[in-house]
Amino acid sequence: MNYHFTKVLDCPFDEAVARATKALADQGFGVLTTIDVAATMKAKIGAEMKPYVILGACNPQFAYRALQAENKIGTMLPCNVVVQDIGGGKSEVSAVNPLESMSAIKNAALEPIAGEVTSRLQTMISSL
Amino acid sequence: MNYHFTKVLDCPFDEAVARATKALADQGFGVLTTIDVAATMKAKIGAEMKPYVILGACNPQFAYRALQAENKIGTMLPCNVVVQDIGGGKSEVSAVNPLESMSAIKNAALEPIAGEVTSRLQTMISSL
Repeated sequence: MNYHFTKVLDCPFDEAVARATKALADQGFGVLTTIDVAATMKAKIGAEMKPYVILGACNPQFAYRALQAENKIGTMLPCNVVVQDIGGGKSEVSAVNPLESMSAIKNAALEPIAGEVTSRLQTMISSL
Repeated sequence: MNYHFTKVLDCPFDEAVARATKALADQGFGVLTTIDVAATMKAKIGAEMKPYVILGACNPQFAYRALQAENKIGTMLPCNVVVQDIGGGKSEVSAVNPLESMSAIKNAALEPIAGEVTSRLQTMISSL
């Protein structure tokens, strides 16, 4: 499996962010953090980028169960969803695949939780 | 290698957060996001946890190079540093190991960047 699930949307960037946020909510994920990567790169090192945002998505029930199973799992939370402007009026939405990013963690109690979260993120991307 | 680098500090939580933030700055990382996990869990599902925070750390030069090499790497950025109260006046600081979390990504251009960031995070934890 790939480390992300991705879909190209035939809509502008701002609409893609709104659609991704709504689709996350439909799967029980709130957005805890929003990083405007393009603005950050411009401010910190003067680099120009197309609009690019990282949404830090969290389903609190699953996050809590994951923390109980593996107390350093916070090094891999929240689950990120990237929205980027790919030009031509199109946008791309990518969700991390936790089963891949967490594959280095050897913890049988964590696996079913990561599996369920992965399934929901995959469904979220498909629903866009 | 483990998926995180961790050190136990003989100091209270707030001091550990301050020391981790300073040590990150010494390695060129700013903190873009701070997630108060204990407060979030309390607010969202009423769960009680000891103080636990996720600092989203970013070295803009490396982040920019990583984004140029792999445009969906934002699904794994920023690099998280967890600070948690482990009781008895002690705290624990854990930094993600990007070489492990990004091991599912097959991209030769990304590897040296992930390697350098990993080295800096490991140095940061050792310096605490």
